[in-house]
Formats: sequence, structure tokens, C-alpha cells
Amino acid sequence: MAERVNVSFFQELMAAVAEQGRALLPKALFGEAGGESIEVLSRALMSGRGEASGVAIARQLLNQLKKATSEERLQFFRFLADDLQPNPAHVADAARAYLDYPSDKTLAKLQKASYSPRLEFFRRLNLAAGATAEIVALRSDLVRHIKSDEALAAVDADLERLLTSWFNRGFLVLRRIDWQTPAAILEKIIEYEAVHEIRGWDDLRRRLDPKDRRCFAFFHPALVDEPLIFVEVALMREMPDAIATVLDGRRPEDDAPPTTAVFYSISNCQDGLKGISFGNFLLKQVVEDLARDVASLRTFVTLSPVPSFARWVDRALASGSDVPISAADRQALSRLRDPRWVEEAAKDAPGTDELKSALMGLAAHYFLVARSNDDRPVDQVARFHLGNGARLERLNWLADPSEKGLREAHGLMVNYRYDLAEIERNHEAYAYDGTVAASRAVRSQLKPVAKPKGLSTMPDLLALPGTGKAKKGRPEETKP
Amino acid sequence: MAERVNVSFFQELMAAVAEQGRALLPKALFGEAGGESIEVLSRALMSGRGEASGVAIARQLLNQLKKATSEERLQFFRFLADDLQPNPAHVADAARAYLDYPSDKTLAKLQKASYSPRLEFFRRLNLAAGATAEIVALRSDLVRHIKSDEALAAVDADLERLLTSWFNRGFLVLRRIDWQTPAAILEKIIEYEAVHEIRGWDDLRRRLDPKDRRCFAFFHPALVDEPLIFVEVALMREMPDAIATVLDGRRPEDDAPPTTAVFYSISNCQDGLKGISFGNFLLKQVVEDLARDVASLRTFVTLSPVPSFARWVDRALASGSDVPISAADRQALSRLRDPRWVEEAAKDAPGTDELKSALMGLAAHYFLVARSNDDRPVDQVARFHLGNGARLERLNWLADPSEKGLREAHGLMVNYRYDLAEIERNHEAYAYDGTVAASRAVRSQLKPVAKPKGLSTMPDLLALPGTGKAKKGRPEETKP
Amino acid sequence: MAERVNVSFFQELMAAVAEQGRALLPKALFGEAGGESIEVLSRALMSGRGEASGVAIARQLLNQLKKATSEERLQFFRFLADDLQPNPAHVADAARAYLDYPSDKTLAKLQKASYSPRLEFFRRLNLAAGATAEIVALRSDLVRHIKSDEALAAVDADLERLLTSWFNRGFLVLRRIDWQTPAAILEKIIEYEAVHEIRGWDDLRRRLDPKDRRCFAFFHPALVDEPLIFVEVALMREMPDAIATVLDGRRPEDDAPPTTAVFYSISNCQDGLKGISFGNFLLKQVVEDLARDVASLRTFVTLSPVPSFARWVDRALASGSDVPISAADRQALSRLRDPRWVEEAAKDAPGTDELKSALMGLAAHYFLVARSNDDRPVDQVARFHLGNGARLERLNWLADPSEKGLREAHGLMVNYRYDLAEIERNHEAYAYDGTVAASRAVRSQLKPVAKPKGLSTMPDLLALPGTGKAKKGRPEETKP
Amino acid sequence: MAERVNVSFFQELMAAVAEQGRALLPKALFGEAGGESIEVLSRALMSGRGEASGVAIARQLLNQLKKATSEERLQFFRFLADDLQPNPAHVADAARAYLDYPSDKTLAKLQKASYSPRLEFFRRLNLAAGATAEIVALRSDLVRHIKSDEALAAVDADLERLLTSWFNRGFLVLRRIDWQTPAAILEKIIEYEAVHEIRGWDDLRRRLDPKDRRCFAFFHPALVDEPLIFVEVALMREMPDAIATVLDGRRPEDDAPPTTAVFYSISNCQDGLKGISFGNFLLKQVVEDLARDVASLRTFVTLSPVPSFARWVDRALASGSDVPISAADRQALSRLRDPRWVEEAAKDAPGTDELKSALMGLAAHYFLVARSNDDRPVDQVARFHLGNGARLERLNWLADPSEKGLREAHGLMVNYRYDLAEIERNHEAYAYDGTVAASRAVRSQLKPVAKPKGLSTMPDLLALPGTGKAKKGRPEETKP
Repeated sequence: MAERVNVSFFQELMAAVAEQGRALLPKALFGEAGGESIEVLSRALMSGRGEASGVAIARQLLNQLKKATSEERLQFFRFLADDLQPNPAHVADAARAYLDYPSDKTLAKLQKASYSPRLEFFRRLNLAAGATAEIVALRSDLVRHIKSDEALAAVDADLERLLTSWFNRGFLVLRRIDWQTPAAILEKIIEYEAVHEIRGWDDLRRRLDPKDRRCFAFFHPALVDEPLIFVEVALMREMPDAIATVLDGRRPEDDAPPTTAVFYSISNCQDGLKGISFGNFLLKQVVEDLARDVASLRTFVTLSPVPSFARWVDRALASGSDVPISAADRQALSRLRDPRWVEEAAKDAPGTDELKSALMGLAAHYFLVARSNDDRPVDQVARFHLGNGARLERLNWLADPSEKGLREAHGLMVNYRYDLAEIERNHEAYAYDGTVAASRAVRSQLKPVAKPKGLSTMPDLLALPGTGKAKKGRPEETKP
Repeated sequence: MAERVNVSFFQELMAAVAEQGRALLPKALFGEAGGESIEVLSRALMSGRGEASGVAIARQLLNQLKKATSEERLQFFRFLADDLQPNPAHVADAARAYLDYPSDKTLAKLQKASYSPRLEFFRRLNLAAGATAEIVALRSDLVRHIKSDEALAAVDADLERLLTSWFNRGFLVLRRIDWQTPAAILEKIIEYEAVHEIRGWDDLRRRLDPKDRRCFAFFHPALVDEPLIFVEVALMREMPDAIATVLDGRRPEDDAPPTTAVFYSISNCQDGLKGISFGNFLLKQVVEDLARDVASLRTFVTLSPVPSFARWVDRALASGSDVPISAADRQALSRLRDPRWVEEAAKDAPGTDELKSALMGLAAHYFLVARSNDDRPVDQVARFHLGNGARLERLNWLADPSEKGLREAHGLMVNYRYDLAEIERNHEAYAYDGTVAASRAVRSQLKPVAKPKGLSTMPDLLALPGTGKAKKGRPEETKP
Repeated sequence: MAERVNVSFFQELMAAVAEQGRALLPKALFGEAGGESIEVLSRALMSGRGEASGVAIARQLLNQLKKATSEERLQFFRFLADDLQPNPAHVADAARAYLDYPSDKTLAKLQKASYSPRLEFFRRLNLAAGATAEIVALRSDLVRHIKSDEALAAVDADLERLLTSWFNRGFLVLRRIDWQTPAAILEKIIEYEAVHEIRGWDDLRRRLDPKDRRCFAFFHPALVDEPLIFVEVALMREMPDAIATVLDGRRPEDDAPPTTAVFYSISNCQDGLKGISFGNFLLKQVVEDLARDVASLRTFVTLSPVPSFARWVDRALASGSDVPISAADRQALSRLRDPRWVEEAAKDAPGTDELKSALMGLAAHYFLVARSNDDRPVDQVARFHLGNGARLERLNWLADPSEKGLREAHGLMVNYRYDLAEIERNHEAYAYDGTVAASRAVRSQLKPVAKPKGLSTMPDLLALPGTGKAKKGRPEETKP
Repeated sequence: MAERVNVSFFQELMAAVAEQGRALLPKALFGEAGGESIEVLSRALMSGRGEASGVAIARQLLNQLKKATSEERLQFFRFLADDLQPNPAHVADAARAYLDYPSDKTLAKLQKASYSPRLEFFRRLNLAAGATAEIVALRSDLVRHIKSDEALAAVDADLERLLTSWFNRGFLVLRRIDWQTPAAILEKIIEYEAVHEIRGWDDLRRRLDPKDRRCFAFFHPALVDEPLIFVEVALMREMPDAIATVLDGRRPEDDAPPTTAVFYSISNCQDGLKGISFGNFLLKQVVEDLARDVASLRTFVTLSPVPSFARWVDRALASGSDVPISAADRQALSRLRDPRWVEEAAKDAPGTDELKSALMGLAAHYFLVARSNDDRPVDQVARFHLGNGARLERLNWLADPSEKGLREAHGLMVNYRYDLAEIERNHEAYAYDGTVAASRAVRSQLKPVAKPKGLSTMPDLLALPGTGKAKKGRPEETKP
């Protein structure tokens, strides 16, 4: 008898544990067998009965969402957008009360009345074990639908706010990624690498295992095997001027200690965390850790791509552009149309010097003078590093002759340098005036015709002032 | 030369690392040496420069707060209350716009305008390593000041909302506490135990180490050595009717497997997390884990205190009370005034039966009939377990003859039983009607005169309906 | 001043820590710079000064051995063989004293006098951090030299005895290998797999990651990233008759739980641990763990190769063999000479049945009747499993059509079954009489002409008695 | 049907797993229920069937030994002593063969014939999970019986040899003990502390938790919660001259970094590992680790007890002693008989100077001149540190006024100093000539009359030569 009871007890428990959870669900939620709809479950979760069976409902709902078709998920997002809204009458009442008599109390009531129930909804959804990762995945799905359905933007705004709170830097854990890391994480590194593709496990090993290579990632405790962002670092003896010197296996023969930490790839991993910035925290933490562990390091630089340079060059060359390009330079640049130009440039064929000079000049203009509509540099990667307080250190000709490198940037790569003595100053100048910190070498590559007025009178300035007011605030999430 | 640079570089870094952080702080924040004020730092943190030096400012501010006097901290809380408010003009504008034309967009603007900057403030404060624990500690300090300064309640409301988000159950980790647990955590268990005091390490060992004793706690990844809540469990062969049978060292001689898991102590640990409920999740998780690991378990009960019973008895006996007490019972209860009554009752002295009958009758009334202003049971612990779906299983006479047990409850303890087959039903009935689930045995102890009308006509009901409408929602945080 | 001292102190320490250790070495050990010879260091290690500087000497010696040429290492082994011997005069004296008066004391002296100083030598060598792995590597080198230099066998015997003591099963740790395992270990699994080659990381993942695949390995605490032996297991619904059904990705569509654990690959990893048996312990431990974790399992079998079957068939077919083969079978078997036989057999071409019958008959003879010189089964893998108490359950035709499978066993694979109810009986019968436990099905495949006398009179026996006395003792280390 | 089989299968397995193991044992081992005798099991373990059921037999035997009475265990030890011996006839044959023709082969046969079967017995016993700790415990029991039964010494010799192999330094793991250490280990620290008693958990915390206190222990992977030896360290600003300055809670007010690591307690934990030395390895490892982690450390010293000083003083004062003591000193020393002498000395009562001078003079003699029969220093602790290469740095008057400190050493404690620059030299001099390295200060406290001849002629020597030949070899295991 007791046996029977226990079996039933255990089975019920197991039903719950086995993530089916229906044993714990209010019976009313189920029509036909398995017929609980996503919307019914969503309403149940919000109903307030949640405390007793909330975990089970949340789990059940997440399971249904995982099995759902794209169309069903879209319906779910629309339900969130349309139905999980503050009660308009309550908002209106509270707004009127506040206008009548602004006070702590009427403000609190207004905040409460206008508080989005979606925040509470996702908070309850997160009760289930493993929910956080699934919520992040939901958002990456949601983002894809926004273009076609603007009303979903409000759902996304709530979700971004919630995830910003949950993924606060204080909750992130920095972990070194190396050859002792579980394969389940390493395969994510291969998959998420967004800058210089990792070609399988041998290539991965070459980037992680040698004692002069490092990789670090931020993790969140609730996303066990999922890196949020990672950076790959090479410990070298000088600032590299081409990606090949970082990625190939060659090393100096002697054992002299490394002096230069080169950040050559930073990749964000989670589309569902779009808009939440980790990169600046990651870089600073890694700089601190490396400086402590490798006493010989003196220099911290990147070797970064220039993702929109080629597109910008096209526009600059187009008629109507206000980018000043001399006829000679224009002539030299026309070689770029010949796909063989790289080969020939590598052989230093006639005309190479001219092409290099023209292209580097344009590059200097691209970084130092050109601005997008928001009066900030055109280049996403530049915005990220300059916003962090780095300075543009060097332009590297023919640094990435890969198909992607040529297509995006005519082979150009650049170094940004993190010099602790000027990080704060650079950041402030960039944030308030849009000033781009750049080395004298880079500034000297700017063609005279392009120099903004007055520049020649302040030859010792390290940084170029922007042409106007940059908006302050968080740099957008970008990738080097 | 390079050496010199590096030394300076490393020193600056170390300054930052060593949590002094001033090297990274905008110079303007400092007047005289060490003279950066809490308010100046707080404004700097909110200023938006935060991205470059936010971590350092947050760390510096937390350090200053730790060193601050109680008065200085109060000033800080007042600064938060007064200065970190939404801009009233913006709120008013947005309120008017919404009233003029309620839409997704005007709602979003209203939400944004009325959004409390304190939430952002604490989010930035949490950038610093170890900040979460310090913020929780700040709140436990803040709570103490609210009584004397009502304006701080708004700060607390923001903080509670934020901590509710951060300490979502999905982020909590259940860990077993046993004799393999680090001493740094064990001493917290001794310190935080709130129900049956732990008298030193030997007493602790008796509760953790034997194979028929368990202890589980919830932890948050950002509060490394700090349990949030923990429960102590005894695996027994029957439902115990006195705390001594749980706490003393005696055991049955044979090796028969345990059938009954007894939750005899649940303690919340962090005053700074007041109002954020973990107990129901903890109990459910532990029931699941125990049922899986100890196959012989069939029954899950508590042995719980009745913290406000004695106080309620006093009021019931006072003139003007509407609790019906017969003259004979009143006579029997008068013995409680004699401090020796326990001794005599233990010896079964004349009059003991009468006292027991009277007291148990009152206890049944206390649980089944009496209600507080919110129309829920008077007893905090009862609210917690009944709200979780448990049923009141047994009243135990002379179950806790300790000084505290006598003072608070005339020695009474009770068992609540978690029976999976009825948890959901009990919870729903309690949430919607205030119905108290109770065993027939408990109901039969209710004196006839006290029974609500109609009760005798439904002898098979397991639960007593409440006398009115209970408010639905989360049970208050309570301790057994 | 103090500063100076400390710098020097720290430098000396670092010198030691940096595994150069010369600072701690007796000066006499060094002639010219770096000129400490392996022999000089070896003598120093044995000299008894060892207690003060033993760790440093051991580390230095191991470093030198790592850098040594093959010839230098051979010299080192010869030094061990020739010079690290018991003193012959002492041995002779002790032998005489024992013969004069055998007693506890004279025996103890004889043991001491004849005790090999090499055991003490390796014990001291193992003082250095990381030494154990290097000693194991040394032995795998030593073993290669034995063939050409018999005197080294004595060194190997000592080393085997020592490693047998160090790698006692009580010190081994069983760890599951899965997709959470560090890459540094996984690449060893790929490298060491000796039965069915693992073709890269994707293939590895298919063997480790699915929830119906398992892999377990023994580790020794002193060999951190080095598995000693590992077994790959498939959880299936029936005993497989071909390796393809294990290795390909297909699965049953429904979710019915697995009933059969199939051990399809066991690989020893360390040549330096040759002769030290782990396989039987590993299998038993894994059977226990799986039976506990996967409640639906009822059957534990292998799918094993038959590594010397093809070679034995060649001998059986040769003139002078005493294996009875009918003319028809001989005719059928001649098809094996045509490399296309597999293809045709797969298509069930004419003659396939005859070939199968002949080959299976020979296989039954190979396992049940044929014996090697030591009167045990010819097959190494069979010796291992039969010695462990398994029974030969089934012969599988065309089970491994890989190049290796055809070359070694004409495609034959077999299942051994571990049936707890008869493990002990099978083991004892095998150990004492050489009896081969086999299923009735296998026995029935034995051609009548080949059956040993009297067999037909005991049709119910599960096992065939051997033809004579098997030597008892540890089965040799073998691989399935 | 399959169900039934599985239940039985699982039950059998569980029987084995539950360490009862009888299901796997050869039936012949059991007479009546539970009646398997220790001797029968021991013989079964040695019988060679061991491979199939060895683990189960070993576990069963260990269980029986744990339940056995002291008398039964003694019988077991006698069985090992008497029955598990090499076969005398085989030994005699092999001895004769060796004498006839000494060669590698005859030597190997002699080694094999005289090899103690007890080594193999314990190797097999160690197959069971957790066996190593139980074998160590067995030896601590065995050691107690040796005095009364000399034949057991041979068993102990085998066991010591085996444990020396198993507990090789290469297998030990150094772990820091602090407030994060599991309570199960910390309570062992309290229990095993052998020098300055730890009075409960608060006292323990004072020794482990402050940032200027350290504790390190060696562990063996097979003895999970059992430290083998541990050392307590105080990081101070000068070499302490009394134990109170180490143990009390007072600290300097400023934050100046520590310069001096003081080893004030080393305790061996396992009686069963008697004779196996860990102390020297522990000290060296800890010195290395501390020097690396705490850059400000310049000095490594002990504050050590002098355990047999008082006993030696009694003998020195007795008639017939050859220790030269002047009449005045003898008079001063007579005060020691008055129990109040310490109090008075603390108050600097008249006569204190004379007493101090006399006692310190004797102490210098005790360390520098007195020798035991083996021509080494009388003091066990001195032997340990001097053998490790330390030098006697200072004699501390009234350094330990505890009851034990007065009883054993009239309050005397000493500092030994580990100076890397002279460790090797000191060790060699001590090992070969018995020379005691001592500071000039200590040497100057030697009374002129006691100085060995010629000493005055070599005032610059740091060390006193011994009076004869010390035996070289491992210092005995001693405790400071």
C-alpha cells in the first residue's frame, strides 16, 4: 500500500522533474491531451497563481515555445506586444493624478501603472531551470521579426532592459579559454569567431594552446556553456602589421619574453544580447590580468579590420562626393578594379607606391575626417576602440589579403593602442567633442588637401578634434 | 627607459587593481588628498563618463560607503531619494502627451520619462567586482532608516525591484550544506539560524553530518560565501511531535530506511533581501531532490513553531475578545501564569488534561478561525506553508519547552504536510478563498462552540473555508 | 641591504623553481657549464645526500634525460642494468647466513641484501614534480631496447614491479569522458583509440556526445591529462551484429529506453604501463555504474574484433594442420582469395551461404577447440574477456568490412556477454580448466567433425572444457 | 520476465556496491550466515582467483577487520607474520643456486623466491575503494602490538616499505588550509595539532583566517579528507622570541608588509605512516611558495619547542654527569624546583639573571656539545631541522610558559633559521660530521668551561663540529 503511494508520488515528481510539469499545472490549462496553448500558458503564468505552480508553467511554456513553428512564435510575440500592456485606463488615471499634484506618491503610482507587465512576465518565465538561455534565444528570434512588425519593438525594448539588468558586468565571470577548456565550449568558439574564421580544431589549437597565445571570454553563471564575448590575444615582440604574422605558426627562435599584447579578434556570441555592451569591460579586464601575469608586457594594441572602408572608398570616388582626391590618386586607385592588383602589389610592380600612397591617404581621411550622420567616425570598429579611449596607432597596407579583407577594406588593417596614461583623456575627448586620438604617423598620412583648417598650427596635438558635437553615451556594440 | 614606462604602467594598473582606482578617476573628482565625497562620486557615476572609468568610480564609491558613518550613509540615501528622481517637467510633458494621444509611442516615452534614475545608478554601482553583496548590505542599512524617514521608502522600492530581478530564482543555485562545506559558509549557518539556535560547531555537526540529516541552501553566484536561505531536514521514521526528538542524538537501533522528511528549520539570511521570497522555491526543490535520492521517503512534513500564538492567547483571554472560551477552559488556562506549569504538565500533574484540552482547542481556533485584518490566518508561518499548498496536519502539545518556545507559543509546535496530490488544490483554495487546509484530527480539536456555522454539515471536507476573501498574491516572506 | 639579500634569495629560489635546480645541487656535480652528466646525476641521486637536494637532482636528471639522444638514454639504461645492482658479496654473505640458519632475521637480511637499488633509484626520481609521467615514458622507451639488449630486461622487471605498485587499482580514478571533457584529454582519446579509428573531432563527438553513447577512462592522480585505458559504450536496444550499427548516426525513431550496453572498444593508452592490467577493473566498474544510472539496462555485451583469426585460418588451411576441414568447406573458403568476395557476399551472390557456413565453422573451432602453446585460446581478446568471466555469445558474419577487419578477421566480429549470474563460475572454470564459456548458438556452429569427444553427451553444458590445464593467473593485457 | 531478471541483476549489483560483496565471493568462503573468517578471506585474496572477485574479497576482508576485536586483529597480524612468508625451501634453493653461480638470472630468482608475499597481499587488499586509508589505520594498530610480539616487526617492515612507495613525495599534493577548507578537514587539524594545542574552532580561525597567517598540508589522493602533515606559519615583522607573540591576536598598527615567515608548528597526522618522512619536503615546498607569493619576505625561521631539555637538565644535574656546571650555576638552577619561579622571573625578581644565565648556558651545551648514543644531538626537533640544513639561530628564555612548555623545557624555545645560501652546506656538514650549524650568538652562550678544546681558536666558524661521526641517512621523523 505504502509502496503504491510512493510509486505514484515518485512518478508525479518525475513527471515534474522530467520537464513535463503537467502534474503540477492547474487542470484548467489543458483541453485535449497536450493541447495547452502557448497563449493559455502565458496567461496562466501571469495570473498570479504562479507562486505554487509557476516553475512548472514556465517550464511547460518554454518547452512549447521550443517546439513551436516560426509562425507560432511570431503569434506569441504579438500576444506579448498587444495583450501584455499596462492598462490604458490606469495609466491615464495615474497620469492625470500626477499632473494634478506631482509628488513622490503620484509618481510612484504612475511608475507602477505604466510598468510593463512584460517585464514581470519574463521574470516569471525565468523561474524555470535553464530559462535564461532560452529567453536569450527567444530574443534573437524576436529581433528577426521586428523589421516586418514594428509593434514588436516595444517587446524588444522591454527585453533589452531586462537582459541589461541580468547581464550586468558585476555578474559576469572572466574565464581563460585554452586547451583545457571543455570541447562543448571550444566548439562554440569555432562557431562564433566572427573576425578571422577558425578552420577546424587544429586551427583552434594553434590559437589557444601555444604559450604565447591567449583567449578570454565572459560567461554568465546562468548560461553554462555559452560564452558571451571572447577575445583572442597574441603575445608578441612587436606590433604586427599583417594578420598573417599573428596566425601563422612561425615564432622567433630565441626565447626573449613578449613585450606586446595584440588583441586580434573580438567576437560577440549571442545575438539575443544585441545592444548590451561587454567589449569594453572585457578588454580592460584582460589588460589588467595580462599586465599582472606577464611582467614583460609594455604595449597593448589591436590588429583590427576596417569593415566599411571599401564601401566608403566607392562613395568617395563617386561623383558628388566631398572627399578631396587628387587626379593622380584617382588614377592610382583605379588599379583596384583589377583583381590581380594584390599579387602585383605584393611583387612591388610599377605603380604600387602610388596606389599605396593614395589608399593610405584615403584611409587617414576615412578615420580622421569623415563622419557619419551622428557626427562620429564612419567605422564601427573605430567607434568601439576610440570610445574606449584607445588611439589609432598605425595604418597597415596589405595586412589582410583574404577574400573578405580585400572585399571589405582593400586589405587594410589598423592598430589601435591602449595606453593607460591617456585612456581617460582620449575617452573624454572622444565622448565630448568626437575627437579622434591618432598617432602622429597616421596624421601625417592625411593628404594636405584634406586637412581641416587650423590643423597645421597644432602639430603637437595627439588628437584631432571632431568637426562637431558627438553624442555622449555608450558606444554601439561593434566588432573589430 | 622601457623599464621605467612599464613600472609606471604596472603601478597605475596595480593602483586600479588594488581597488583604489583613483588613477582611473577623472581628476575633477578629487579636491584635497582623499577628499572625494560620496555625493561627488555618485554624480560622476551617473554622469555618463561611466563607460571608461565606471568600474573604478563604482569601486571607489563603495569603498567610501563602507568607511562612512551611519550619518553619512543616511545622507547618501537622502541624496538618492531627493536628487535621483525623474525630471518632473519631463514626466509632466510625457503624461500630457499620453493623455492627448495614448499609443505605444507615447506610452514608451512616459515609461522612459518616469523611469527611476536610481535603477540605473545601482546598475552602474554593480559594475565593480563584489558590488552585489555590498548593495545587499546597503539595503539592510537603508531599511533601518525608513521608519524615521519616509521619503526613503521610494529608494527602497526601487532597490527591492532591482534585487527581485537580480535574485530571480533562475539565477539561484541549490547547494547541499554538510561537513564538507567550507567553514566560511558554516559559520554563517550558525549565525543565521533563526528558529532553533545552533550552539557552536559540535551542535552544527550533529545537524549536518549524520547520514539522516540534511541541509540545503540557495546561493547566488555573485554572493560567494553567503547563503540566502537554508532549510534543515531530518530523515525520520515518523512525523515527530517534539523538537527534542529531532535535535537530540538518539536514533532507532535498527537500520530501517527513513520514510519521513522533516523540515524543522528554515532561515532567511539576508536582511537586505527582505520582501524577496525564496522559501517556496527552496522547499519544492528540496522535496524533489530528496524524493529522487532517498527512495524510501513517502511523507514530507515540517515541524514548525507558532510564533505569535501566546500573544494571541493573551488577547483572546482579554475582556472584549470575540473568541468563545468556556469558563472551564478559562480556568484551566489560568495555570499558564505559573512558571512551573511545564514541569507539572510533564509529570502529568492533576489538571494537565484540562489545560491541554483548553490550549489545543484555542490553537485549533487560532489556525482555523482567527483571522487578521487582511482576512488571512494570524500566524506568519502558517501563511507561508498554507500559501505553498501544505495542510495543517497536527498540533503538538509541549513540543518545544525551551524558553523561547514557551514564551511565544506555550510550548506548541505544529506539523504542516506537503502532499503532492493536493498541493495545487490547497494553494488555489487558500489563494482565492483563504481556505485553510487541515487534517480531520486538527479540525476535531476545534471546540464545538467555536465552529463556524455549517461546518458540521460537511464533515468530509479536508479544508475549512475562510470567512471572507483573502487577497491573492505572493505570501509574505515568513519563517517557520 | 635587505633588498639585495632578498633579490638574491628570490633569484635562487626561482632558479630552483624554474626547474633548473642547479642552485640546490652539490657543486661537485658540475664540471664545465651545463656539463653535469646523466650518470653523475644518477649517482648523486643514489648517494644519500638526496634528502637535502633530492628533488632538485631528480628534476635536473629528468630534464637531461628528456634532452638526451636515443643513444644516451640507452647508455643510461645500461648504467642502471650494470651499476645499480645489489652488492654481490653482500648477497652471497646473506645467502650463506640464511642457509646456515633460516630465520626471520636472516631472511630479512637476505631480502635487504638482494633488494634492487633500482627500485630506490626510481623512488627518488619520482620526488620531482611531474616525474611519474616521465618515468612511464622512460619505460616505453626502455621496452623498445630490450630486444636488442637482454640485460635491460632486469631493469624493466624492476620498473614493472614499481609501476604495478604505484598504479594499483586503489589509486585509479574513473572519469566519464564526454563533450564536457577538456580538449587536451579528448585529443589523447583520438590518438590512443586502437580498435576503431576515430576520424577527427566530428567522429569523436558522435561517439561521446549523444545521450546513448558513453566513454569512461581510468586516470592516475599523478598523470593529469593522460588516460590509462578507456572504453567506449553504446546504449542500444539489442545486441549489435555489425560495427556499422554502432558507429553510424542512425537511431530508432521512438524513445524507448536502452536495454543493452555494448562495449565496442577498449584501448590501453600507455606503452610504459605494459603488463599492468586495468581492463578487468574498468569493465566491472563501468558495468556497476551503468546498471545504477540507467535502470532499463538488462544486458552487458561487447562487440569485439578477432585480431588473429585470419592468420590462424591461413595456418589451418596449410598442409600439415590438424584442423579438420571438409573438402567442400575448403572449396568455399578459396573465395576469400578474391578481394571482391565481400561485395559479392553483401549481394548474397551464389556461394555466399557455403562460404559463411565454412567460415563460421572455422571460427567456432578457433574459439572452442584451438589452443596455443600455453593451452589457452589462441585469441588475445578472447583470453581477456573469458578470463574476466564473460561468455562467447555470438559470431557475427561480415560485421567489420573495413580494410583492417577483413585483413585480420575476414570481417568477423564476436559478442562476449557479461552475465553477472555466471561471471564467477565462468572465470573459475576458465582459470582452472581452461574451459571456454560459450552460448549454445556458438557451440552449434562447430562442425561435427571438429567436436571433441564426449561433447555430444553433454548438450546442456554452457561451457566447453579445455583440452588440458590452463595456467592460472592474470590474463595478459589484451585489447578487444 | 526481463523485468524479473533485471531486478535480480540490479539487486546483486547493489549488494556488491553496498560493500557487502558477498554476491561476488566464491561460495566456499562462507559457512554459516556471515561466518566468513578473516583468515579464510585472507587466503582467498592470495589464492589467485583474485582477478575476478578480488575487489569484492578485499572489501569484505576490510569490513571484517573493521568490525574485529583487538584480539582478532592481533591474530590477523600473526597470520600475516607466520603464514605469509616466502617458502623456505624455495629460498634455500635459490640461495644455493646464486652461490653456485652468481648471475643476473640467479639473482632475479633469489629476489623472487625471497619476495615477501605480504607485499602482494596488501597490494591486493588495496584494490577495494577506500582501502588505502584503512591499510594506514591497520598499521597504526599493528605498531601498538609490536612491543609485545616481536615477530610482527617483519610485517611492519613490509608495510613500511609498501607505504613508502605509495606515499612517495611525487604523489603528494600540497594544499593550503584556510577558512575556505571543508570542516571535515579542519576538525582533523584541531585533532592532530601536536605542538600548541588548538582550543576549538575560534582558536583555529585565529590561526587560519587572518591574512598574515598560513597553514599548508600534504594530502595523498587516496586519503581524501586526511592531511598527512601540516605546518602553521605566521607572517611577521621580526623573528619572535615567545610563542605568545605568535598566538595572541595583537598585530602592529601600521600596514607594513611582513618580512619573516615563522614556522611555529609542524604536526604529523598519521601514526600509520610512522617512519615515512614528509616534513623536509613540506618545509621546502612552503618556503618556495611563500617566497613567490609574498614578495616582502626575507627570512624563514621556526619557533620550535625543545621537548627533552628538562629531562636532560635533570640528568646533567645528577651526580655522575659529565656536564660541567659551576657551583654558582647549580645554585641558581635550584630555583627551578620552586613552582613559582616563572612568576618571579617574569617580575625580574632577584636571582633571575643568574638563573637565566645558567639555564641558557646549559641550553647551549645541550645543543652544541651533548650527544646521544648515535653521536647526534639529543634533541629530536633539532635533529630534524639541522638535518634539513637549518641553523640554530637563537635561544629564547621564557618563551613558552605553558604547563607543557615548563615541564618539558623550563619555558625554553628556539629559532631555527633556513637560509638558502647555506642549507646545502649545513646539511652536508651535519650529515657527514654531525656538525651543528649555530649562530655566533648561540655559541657565545656556551659557558667557557664547557667549550670543547680548540673551539676558541676558530671564532669565525658558524658551525661546531660534532665530536665524532654521525651516521648519514635520513633524519628520523621528528616533530618541532
